[in-house]
Amino acid sequence: MILAETIGIGDELLSGLTLNTNSVFIAQELEALGIVTRWQTIVGDDLDDIKDALERALSRADVVTLTGGLGPTHDDMTKKALCNYFQVDLKLYPEILEKIKRRFERRGYKLPKINRNQAEYPANAELLNNSAGSAQGMAFQVGEKVVYSMPGVPREMQAIMREEILPRLKDRTSTRMVRINLHTTGVPESRLYESIHSVFLDHPNLKVAYLPKHTGVTIRLSLVSEDVSTARSQLDLIISNVRQLLPEAVYGIDDDTLPKVVGDLLRELESRVATAESCTGGLIASMLTDVSGSSDYFEAGYVTYANRVKHAVLGVPLEVLETEGAVSEATVKAMLNGALKAAGAEYAVAVSGIAGPTGGTAEKPVGLVYIGAGRKNDLVVKRFQFGRDRILNKEMTAMAALNLLRIKLLADLKR
Amino acid sequence: MILAETIGIGDELLSGLTLNTNSVFIAQELEALGIVTRWQTIVGDDLDDIKDALERALSRADVVTLTGGLGPTHDDMTKKALCNYFQVDLKLYPEILEKIKRRFERRGYKLPKINRNQAEYPANAELLNNSAGSAQGMAFQVGEKVVYSMPGVPREMQAIMREEILPRLKDRTSTRMVRINLHTTGVPESRLYESIHSVFLDHPNLKVAYLPKHTGVTIRLSLVSEDVSTARSQLDLIISNVRQLLPEAVYGIDDDTLPKVVGDLLRELESRVATAESCTGGLIASMLTDVSGSSDYFEAGYVTYANRVKHAVLGVPLEVLETEGAVSEATVKAMLNGALKAAGAEYAVAVSGIAGPTGGTAEKPVGLVYIGAGRKNDLVVKRFQFGRDRILNKEMTAMAALNLLRIKLLADLKR
Repeated sequence: MILAETIGIGDELLSGLTLNTNSVFIAQELEALGIVTRWQTIVGDDLDDIKDALERALSRADVVTLTGGLGPTHDDMTKKALCNYFQVDLKLYPEILEKIKRRFERRGYKLPKINRNQAEYPANAELLNNSAGSAQGMAFQVGEKVVYSMPGVPREMQAIMREEILPRLKDRTSTRMVRINLHTTGVPESRLYESIHSVFLDHPNLKVAYLPKHTGVTIRLSLVSEDVSTARSQLDLIISNVRQLLPEAVYGIDDDTLPKVVGDLLRELESRVATAESCTGGLIASMLTDVSGSSDYFEAGYVTYANRVKHAVLGVPLEVLETEGAVSEATVKAMLNGALKAAGAEYAVAVSGIAGPTGGTAEKPVGLVYIGAGRKNDLVVKRFQFGRDRILNKEMTAMAALNLLRIKLLADLKR
Repeated sequence: MILAETIGIGDELLSGLTLNTNSVFIAQELEALGIVTRWQTIVGDDLDDIKDALERALSRADVVTLTGGLGPTHDDMTKKALCNYFQVDLKLYPEILEKIKRRFERRGYKLPKINRNQAEYPANAELLNNSAGSAQGMAFQVGEKVVYSMPGVPREMQAIMREEILPRLKDRTSTRMVRINLHTTGVPESRLYESIHSVFLDHPNLKVAYLPKHTGVTIRLSLVSEDVSTARSQLDLIISNVRQLLPEAVYGIDDDTLPKVVGDLLRELESRVATAESCTGGLIASMLTDVSGSSDYFEAGYVTYANRVKHAVLGVPLEVLETEGAVSEATVKAMLNGALKAAGAEYAVAVSGIAGPTGGTAEKPVGLVYIGAGRKNDLVVKRFQFGRDRILNKEMTAMAALNLLRIKLLADLKR
């Protein structure tokens, strides 16, 4: 068994200002290759502590990852510690210096002197390309063992892991973990479990983990195997069984996001969508436009917070706002019709609710939201009751709205 | 200086299924007492690894905390490791056994045999009351040093820390740490450093950390002192110096967010704001409405993705869209005027750009964004060049837009 140790470096990790999510990512990716992370260490920006942690890690683990401590400021110590440990000097890479200079120039700055050291690396390091930033990753061979050093910025660390480190480590192991993440929304963990756990009983070598978030539960299914294709078809069968049991809750797997799935359906239907938002304040539009290419199907978004604007922009009748209130089925229906008309889109999604934490009444408490979706003369509006936290309410409302739209699009596609 | 090490115990922490938030909580609470957490270690449910980590921690730290590994199941190893390390046996506490029995009986169960061990603790442990669960905390005196062991469930760990451990540690220290986080946006870390590091030179006992994110850099200033009020006024002076050097970049401290600061200024000016967004797709409106009470000043948001919608909803002249293009100073200016008029608000903020990753040209590359803000007859539009990542571009654009609005509001307030 190949054992790994992750070392996180940075005073900000120790003081608790930054949560160490890098070790989680690394451990999961290594696990997929059958490599077991057995120790995690965090040390500050301190030369001796880094050296010490590295020495100890190499005494017990086969793969050691270092994250953090590669920035340009004086408190970043990792390269110094590596030089010191391996007893080598820093080496300047002129081509990297040029690249960094050009990057600064493109943004209209001169290269600050302090950034020069981002072109210097320990002489015995093999450089690993960082496609997401300027600090390169490094690999060090120590006998049979290997040390990888990466920046602490999660996006950059992940790029180097995916593009440089994991491909190298793949050659070292024969077992693979095949894993599929199944994304659901709208059904709580305990009810999901009751609905589907019988599907998993026939597969004793299957590992199932429920990862709940307020926006939905991801079910992680893992199989360890030396035969990837058999494992994958076993997983595919399981997933199709789960989908049949939960057709409305399961919206995708792995890299699928709900906005991406909705966008794909709109594209298939050659249709466009408009949003009309009150309590989500633009979040639904923002999620839809997070997807590259969404200008193909996203037409317009209206954030109508004030009643006056609901009437003026979307034509919600004043008498509806007065008699039924802004948070009502009738208002959301009028918002949908208004958005369809104003934008000239085939589909619309609309929400109105009380995000909180204040503004609730006995009849209409904080967390009450009406959500609607559909096309002209074919609209559905549902009532939801969420919690008391404003941000969570916004996020849960946006997910529920996009899922309602997804179910509608799916039904129209099958027609 | 009193040094601490936190040791997290549990396979679920190593595999990445659970994020280690306990160490963050403990580090922050200790730091407020001037106790510096200098190492964090995570090990699995393994006897030797726990003993090993404990031994090492006691060789370098004065205060050692263990969390996790106290549950009744067979894989929880902490008490065994403590007995083994201190060379003592487990001692049964009959009164605790009775309490656990009664708790099970109240729920209608008989005490499972496996739970008996929750009444057994290493003979040399001083027990620490757990007001939130059944596994007691433990304290061990080792010469001048001290070891605390707590359950891994955050709620229980926090109860024991607050009620038992922190009161004991308070007596050990006379120093306290005072800390302020200064939030900036729009200036890269290295340029911030060059502009302001001279301010810090006069304060040798000041600790400065730069915490960069793509949306801005937070500068964390910490002072360890025996006199909290002197330290606080020293920090206040430093901050006012930094603000003078970077009036446009610094937008707030500690819990301030940019949307909240903008909202407070709008409220002071008794004004309302409207947003007109292209490439950010509603993100600016969503950020503004994340703030509770934002309905006081947020009037309406328009997400005008298609050119047709920019013209129809905001009245951007078709000839401007044709000759200058959607991504241009003229279009953003017209969007601002259109939003001011359509919403009837005093202020507007507008953006148009190429979020990417596709859609760029040589003349207008991916990441080019025009951002504008202001009031009627008093508008400013600036050109920005961001990167290639769609989501980062959206977030950086939204922050830059809100900051431009903030600077405008601030100037109007001083008038």
